[in-house]
Amino acid sequence: MRHLFIILRHNPLLWLLVFVPVVLTAEKLKPEAHTLLFLLSVCAIVPLAALLSHATESVAVKTGDAVGGLLNATLGNLTELVIALTALHAGEYMLVKASIAGAIVANTLFMLGASFLLGGLKYHVQEYNRVSARVQTSLLFLATVALLIPSAVSRADAAAGAALSQKLSVGLAVLLIAAYGLGLLFSLKTHRELFASAESGEADEAPLPAGVALATLAGVTVLVALVSEVFVESVQQSAETFGMTPAFVGFIIVALVGGSAEMASAFSGARKNRLDLSVGIALGSAAQIALFVAPLLVLVSYFIGPTPMDLQFWPGAVVMILIATLTATLITNSGRSAWFVGVLVLMVYLIFAMTLYLLPPRG
Amino acid sequence: MRHLFIILRHNPLLWLLVFVPVVLTAEKLKPEAHTLLFLLSVCAIVPLAALLSHATESVAVKTGDAVGGLLNATLGNLTELVIALTALHAGEYMLVKASIAGAIVANTLFMLGASFLLGGLKYHVQEYNRVSARVQTSLLFLATVALLIPSAVSRADAAAGAALSQKLSVGLAVLLIAAYGLGLLFSLKTHRELFASAESGEADEAPLPAGVALATLAGVTVLVALVSEVFVESVQQSAETFGMTPAFVGFIIVALVGGSAEMASAFSGARKNRLDLSVGIALGSAAQIALFVAPLLVLVSYFIGPTPMDLQFWPGAVVMILIATLTATLITNSGRSAWFVGVLVLMVYLIFAMTLYLLPPRG
Amino acid sequence: MRHLFIILRHNPLLWLLVFVPVVLTAEKLKPEAHTLLFLLSVCAIVPLAALLSHATESVAVKTGDAVGGLLNATLGNLTELVIALTALHAGEYMLVKASIAGAIVANTLFMLGASFLLGGLKYHVQEYNRVSARVQTSLLFLATVALLIPSAVSRADAAAGAALSQKLSVGLAVLLIAAYGLGLLFSLKTHRELFASAESGEADEAPLPAGVALATLAGVTVLVALVSEVFVESVQQSAETFGMTPAFVGFIIVALVGGSAEMASAFSGARKNRLDLSVGIALGSAAQIALFVAPLLVLVSYFIGPTPMDLQFWPGAVVMILIATLTATLITNSGRSAWFVGVLVLMVYLIFAMTLYLLPPRG
Repeated sequence: MRHLFIILRHNPLLWLLVFVPVVLTAEKLKPEAHTLLFLLSVCAIVPLAALLSHATESVAVKTGDAVGGLLNATLGNLTELVIALTALHAGEYMLVKASIAGAIVANTLFMLGASFLLGGLKYHVQEYNRVSARVQTSLLFLATVALLIPSAVSRADAAAGAALSQKLSVGLAVLLIAAYGLGLLFSLKTHRELFASAESGEADEAPLPAGVALATLAGVTVLVALVSEVFVESVQQSAETFGMTPAFVGFIIVALVGGSAEMASAFSGARKNRLDLSVGIALGSAAQIALFVAPLLVLVSYFIGPTPMDLQFWPGAVVMILIATLTATLITNSGRSAWFVGVLVLMVYLIFAMTLYLLPPRG
Repeated sequence: MRHLFIILRHNPLLWLLVFVPVVLTAEKLKPEAHTLLFLLSVCAIVPLAALLSHATESVAVKTGDAVGGLLNATLGNLTELVIALTALHAGEYMLVKASIAGAIVANTLFMLGASFLLGGLKYHVQEYNRVSARVQTSLLFLATVALLIPSAVSRADAAAGAALSQKLSVGLAVLLIAAYGLGLLFSLKTHRELFASAESGEADEAPLPAGVALATLAGVTVLVALVSEVFVESVQQSAETFGMTPAFVGFIIVALVGGSAEMASAFSGARKNRLDLSVGIALGSAAQIALFVAPLLVLVSYFIGPTPMDLQFWPGAVVMILIATLTATLITNSGRSAWFVGVLVLMVYLIFAMTLYLLPPRG
Repeated sequence: MRHLFIILRHNPLLWLLVFVPVVLTAEKLKPEAHTLLFLLSVCAIVPLAALLSHATESVAVKTGDAVGGLLNATLGNLTELVIALTALHAGEYMLVKASIAGAIVANTLFMLGASFLLGGLKYHVQEYNRVSARVQTSLLFLATVALLIPSAVSRADAAAGAALSQKLSVGLAVLLIAAYGLGLLFSLKTHRELFASAESGEADEAPLPAGVALATLAGVTVLVALVSEVFVESVQQSAETFGMTPAFVGFIIVALVGGSAEMASAFSGARKNRLDLSVGIALGSAAQIALFVAPLLVLVSYFIGPTPMDLQFWPGAVVMILIATLTATLITNSGRSAWFVGVLVLMVYLIFAMTLYLLPPRG
């Protein structure tokens, strides 16, 4: 308990935790106040995500390099996973897919671009481990192909219908998880030295003791699940109140809320000239969502959703993921960065956000 | 006046200036002779473009590095801008868009490829500043995304109509001009040293005195505007006489005529083993058209055109711009060139030209 | 004769030659046993391809570097060419195109990826000549543009019909062969030193004497043609027996059978840490099929096919070739490889194979 208080004092973001009981109470008292519930749930998810990320890192530090890296690599996007599972359970497949695609794009463009910009405003030129970035963008490229091919082929071939899409999605999900697993084996075990300078293990804050960390991990996950339910229920209707399209909400708002904790770490790394950390978090997180969270949701949908979910995304989303991956690949090729690189990457994200904001709602 | 005569003696291309009064007279006497007027206007635009480019450089040299670079970067494609404005005023949006897309592709592929080839036939291997090339191709990539996303999304979403396209185009235009401005800040101010060897300021010919240069700039711009009017009016009808499709004329002929002056500089640079100069002109000019001229035309169309123009291009043109940008990105990655690199880039341009030449006219 | 026996003793693969008379006899006796004939013809083509490849290399060694390189570069895919010519003669254009596209993709992804993986399982990190790889991927990129543009433009422009496609295909075929020829001039003559470490001339087995090699070349080509006829006739029907779609058979099975000999060389090179050899065979072979075999088939179709063949491919195949080229370009950019790079490239191939396997048959 004392440890949690120390963390609370060091990280003012966590004071937002007070919104957790507030939103859960409000949901009981005023289940119709969608806009209020939406705002409260956002305020509650942000600190929970930060706490979850800190607890994961603490467990990772305690368990040593290999297991710790594995933990970080699988639980690093626990918030996104819990939100998506809640939406999956509610049968909101559009929201699930939009939030997955949005999270990939937000990590690859917004988090990476803002890190380059924030770092570049302080340091003239920054360098980072480009081998590590190359492996992550290659994984992203593989995931993009896996999302692209089914929709390209099914377009060219109208006869191929939902049945093909479903079978293909399961096969691709297994393939992507296997690729992700082999990627971990490569970067944590057989070729660890190539990723040396990434320093992803060094947490800035003091790690929690193992017991506290595990308890926090379990408890906060439950809380995230509870708040996510309010968030998922309220997000669409309150979006209309704000005049936002559902596509914009799923793709931009949910992704930025879900990734807020990692963004805080990535930006702070960039300001401390530890760009390796920022690039690792941004691209690693995008790869994890594309090759682990998304396929996992497809497989899990056979058990918890009303009907199975496939990997066929809205074509506009596939194009955006493709462009985001290409941008990251071309930009990280040199292993050097300056403020303007950040501007360029952010501009691509802005183009996406603007397009989605102006897009009229479908149906 | 003496200065102008010296220039005329050094540059036989400028003797073509005699066609300026000829075409303007011919237009009064024989307004129906489209083919003749087309040929005369081409012969008149080429030397005017060369003179305009020389005057811009002279003003740039006099005003010092930062302002000069800015002038070069904004007025470097004055010919293309004036031709496009004339076509815009005449409501010829198809021609405007084809000439913009064509100019981007001609600079990125034809000017770059021919520079590599001409330089490579004389020197075994040539090197150039690849950091500078990378910034320009990144800007081009951003512009390509800005052209691609609206058409990709509106295809995927038929409900999104002309209204979306119009609002989006204004937003994208502002974004692209902002990116271009920040790019100038980056390359002319904060990270100037990265672009050091580009030597874009060194003009081969002696610069004009400031007064003469400014007067030339103003006078020649007026002449280009007058001749452009004849050119725009005659180009489509005379194209039919030559058996060319409108797409081929707008994309290939107008682009090559408008860029003739810069091509002369780029090719001469390559023959003198100053490939930095050639690559800088080719890619810089393409970026300028994509991120400054095209967005400016969209914004200006609200004031001078019959109806506002949007940024939605013919899908075939978007694909060509995308391929041209990818080609330039991949080819300039190494910072080295040999004759065969030029052949490869020119071949891509030839494929485009051949396809457009064979394409049956629409409508 | 003695030489052939020595080869037979060193290369157990060649014992499969016994299937050549078997399949030709079986075809006479049981022309309806499609599945049997298919299996027998596969078993017969594999050793013939190996023998053909060895004979070509022997002739190449005898004739010296320039002519030898040229021979290798034009006859290296003789097996694929003969199979495709047989299918062309039978009017099986779908099979011809599927096998061409499949061979490009199989060489670029399967052969390259498996070489990286097999080499990487033995050596920690392997290096290869990336300049050479860059030239080959650039040629592949050019061929991809040539396949992409016609279908992109004709989609955007429905008015453009079969007539355009035919004229364009002939033009593109001439252009691609010219680019391939200039590429040979570049890599074998003017800039030979850049390709130095490729060592493609060093055959592992002792070369055949010139006379034996030429006789083998001629004799085996005739045998391949005879067996190919059985293969082409039986492949589609026996595929149905195995529950495979025609797309899968043409794209995957035919490509792997036709390229088996080169794969054996590429994999053996990778295991001996001569990755230059593997990358050269894989990418060189893909470039040769895309820029020499495919265009040649278009031109030849005017003489031997029932109607001329064009270069317009099924959109799904174009997307796969595009992705394969992009993958090879991005992956070979660094000139270094480890086992995981091989896994990534193979995964892309697996995604393609799985999609084609699940695709319902058309029509």
